Amino acid sequence: MESANVLKGACIIGQSGGPTAVINASAYGAIRAGLDAECITKVYGAANGIKGVLDDKLYIMDEEDPAELKLLLNTPSSELGSCRYKMKDPDVDDTDYKRILEIFKKYDVRYFFYNGGNDSMDTCNKISKYCQKVGYDCRVMGIPKTIDNDLFGTDHCPGFASAAKYIATSCMEISKDATVYDTAQITVVEIMGRHAGWLAGAAALATAFGAGPDLVYLPEVDFDMDKFFADVDKIYATKNKVLIAVSEGIHYADGRFVSEAETSATDGFGHAQLGGLAVKLAEALKAHTGAKVRGIELSLLQRCASHLASATDRAEAELAGRTAVEAAVSGKTDYMVAFDCDRTNGKYTCATKLLPLSDVANYEKKVPMEWINAERNGVTQEFIDYALPLIQGEPEYPTESSLPRYAKLKKVIAK
Amino acid sequence: MESANVLKGACIIGQSGGPTAVINASAYGAIRAGLDAECITKVYGAANGIKGVLDDKLYIMDEEDPAELKLLLNTPSSELGSCRYKMKDPDVDDTDYKRILEIFKKYDVRYFFYNGGNDSMDTCNKISKYCQKVGYDCRVMGIPKTIDNDLFGTDHCPGFASAAKYIATSCMEISKDATVYDTAQITVVEIMGRHAGWLAGAAALATAFGAGPDLVYLPEVDFDMDKFFADVDKIYATKNKVLIAVSEGIHYADGRFVSEAETSATDGFGHAQLGGLAVKLAEALKAHTGAKVRGIELSLLQRCASHLASATDRAEAELAGRTAVEAAVSGKTDYMVAFDCDRTNGKYTCATKLLPLSDVANYEKKVPMEWINAERNGVTQEFIDYALPLIQGEPEYPTESSLPRYAKLKKVIAK
Repeated sequence: MESANVLKGACIIGQSGGPTAVINASAYGAIRAGLDAECITKVYGAANGIKGVLDDKLYIMDEEDPAELKLLLNTPSSELGSCRYKMKDPDVDDTDYKRILEIFKKYDVRYFFYNGGNDSMDTCNKISKYCQKVGYDCRVMGIPKTIDNDLFGTDHCPGFASAAKYIATSCMEISKDATVYDTAQITVVEIMGRHAGWLAGAAALATAFGAGPDLVYLPEVDFDMDKFFADVDKIYATKNKVLIAVSEGIHYADGRFVSEAETSATDGFGHAQLGGLAVKLAEALKAHTGAKVRGIELSLLQRCASHLASATDRAEAELAGRTAVEAAVSGKTDYMVAFDCDRTNGKYTCATKLLPLSDVANYEKKVPMEWINAERNGVTQEFIDYALPLIQGEPEYPTESSLPRYAKLKKVIAK
Repeated sequence: MESANVLKGACIIGQSGGPTAVINASAYGAIRAGLDAECITKVYGAANGIKGVLDDKLYIMDEEDPAELKLLLNTPSSELGSCRYKMKDPDVDDTDYKRILEIFKKYDVRYFFYNGGNDSMDTCNKISKYCQKVGYDCRVMGIPKTIDNDLFGTDHCPGFASAAKYIATSCMEISKDATVYDTAQITVVEIMGRHAGWLAGAAALATAFGAGPDLVYLPEVDFDMDKFFADVDKIYATKNKVLIAVSEGIHYADGRFVSEAETSATDGFGHAQLGGLAVKLAEALKAHTGAKVRGIELSLLQRCASHLASATDRAEAELAGRTAVEAAVSGKTDYMVAFDCDRTNGKYTCATKLLPLSDVANYEKKVPMEWINAERNGVTQEFIDYALPLIQGEPEYPTESSLPRYAKLKKVIAK
């Protein structure tokens, strides 16, 4: 997966999957490195990820004002646009691959950088293999991104830490607000993470600093409503306020998501309800305890709150983008940039490494069971020690009249 | 309402009603001024507002570490605890008033400061009148607080601006996130404000800076579902993304809250739903347009996000607390501290003034109809010009491992 020769040509950078607070920092790292690389003749941004390639909709990044480009560092979501597009197996249907090759040839694209999660690494891998099969010389690199933090082989994923910081800070604020009256109050906060509990676990950072959830439920553990009620009763008996963080992905032992499960009299749900898991569990606890309840869904904000990003996360996201381009320019292909971190003696360092794309695609990394407490309603100190270094630092964010000033790109479309 | 003599004695400071991001800044302003005033012999904080007085649960503020006290400036919610307690008419039942007088006498309380909204000003007024009636010399001052911004006679209320800034910033972030895919998407954001639309209107600050809601609905205007659909259709036809901000208090012409109204086939609600107004409207729009929809409730965070407070708001909140104490010490009683502001030529200044308590209690200030646009789905430039100066400035907030460091008070209870 290395070629010594200098490869001259254009590059495409694409963003894929759900937004994060720092995915644009990775884009900036890659775009800037692409513009600075001598062998890269042109830097294109794909509109809405791979769909922009298929639709021949590429933005010319060389046309952008450098100062505006730099504002990508503090612009949330995916500024080039994103997509959720699953590539077919090229052996079954190679229509898309032929089209991609056509576009690559049209713009002399010799570098392809794709920023996303599991599915995006799979897309990267398939495109690269196809190019190799047809003998088209193109270096393909994956740049990791996901708030879910479930990518294999890397210490963590860019995007996770900023979401974790938002969740922990918000839980601290909610814990102050939800305990202000002397009356009984139970509050349930719903956190993203369908299959892995990294984000829900991050709520415990708030507790570690004195004001956070009493109970945290991760999707790594089968959910049991009776056990849940017993957990809550225990806290409720000692203080009449309970704050609970739950992953949206909690499920019963038979696999049914609690958010989608049929309601029954035994679990306290009187009737079918929409409005999310937090409200559902809050209503069940109201029926069970009689307390005043509130369900709060952190919703989109946990993944796009760039005003509360982690400076560490932002710097690492940019580094990942830059590293992908520099590695490709130096001859590497078919890798995803990953992080190797050291936390020995409380000192955190983060170095990049390269993982073969074929090793990372479509494998989900979950929270290790030994980082979940014995009662299965919280995380251990190991989890805190893992996550805390990642959320460090408040990055500068430019404002205009005290509101965020985001990048305003021209997005000139290539003909 | 002025007495020239020096009144020596203790003071009580109480917090009431819903929390805000800066109500503790007002408490700090008052507590610090109380500790610094020669004639004030002791500063007590009432646990859970007037309930703490009735229950003889007062914290001795003189015992607190000054540095910890100062951290109240960036601690959200009401650190002394709050209550929602409506005082009876003393002519009907004076039990509470007798008890309050007993406690005032027990601790030689000669100053009473109460920080809250409409109901709290009413409480202030009643206690003061009762003290006067029974000939007990006590100076009573109200300190305004409410994110709803609906207090009469003041340019604005401490707490509003920080909530407004949170709402505007969050709407900017949501607008970036909710437009990331090239597929149709309608997003509804639900904002606090049961009777007044100040907070919903603040969402338009985001739009004024390039990334905010297309449509804003305030409770000052009767809601009409057909008109709403027509508004959305218009935006949806030109771009396939619509972002809508709604006040939780929007209601039909007959007074029924949209959030609570019976559902019907005509308004697109197929069946009864819990989970809030945002989800309800989103589902109605899904049925109407077929687009992907999402309902987001900003919930408690809009009132307790001290990490995103307005520096202007925080400074003014502290000023209001300090002014109340200084005015009382100088002989004033029966007033609420209010703000007189000047925005001439884009230069904002804010001065305090005193309003008779009897004038402010129980009157709600709404958004003027001339600040709502002709289409009744947004606000005018006048609204923006009014609100923008209030959200200015990012206050310092101390952190510990990059998470907020809140005040840790000893809360020594007076015997």
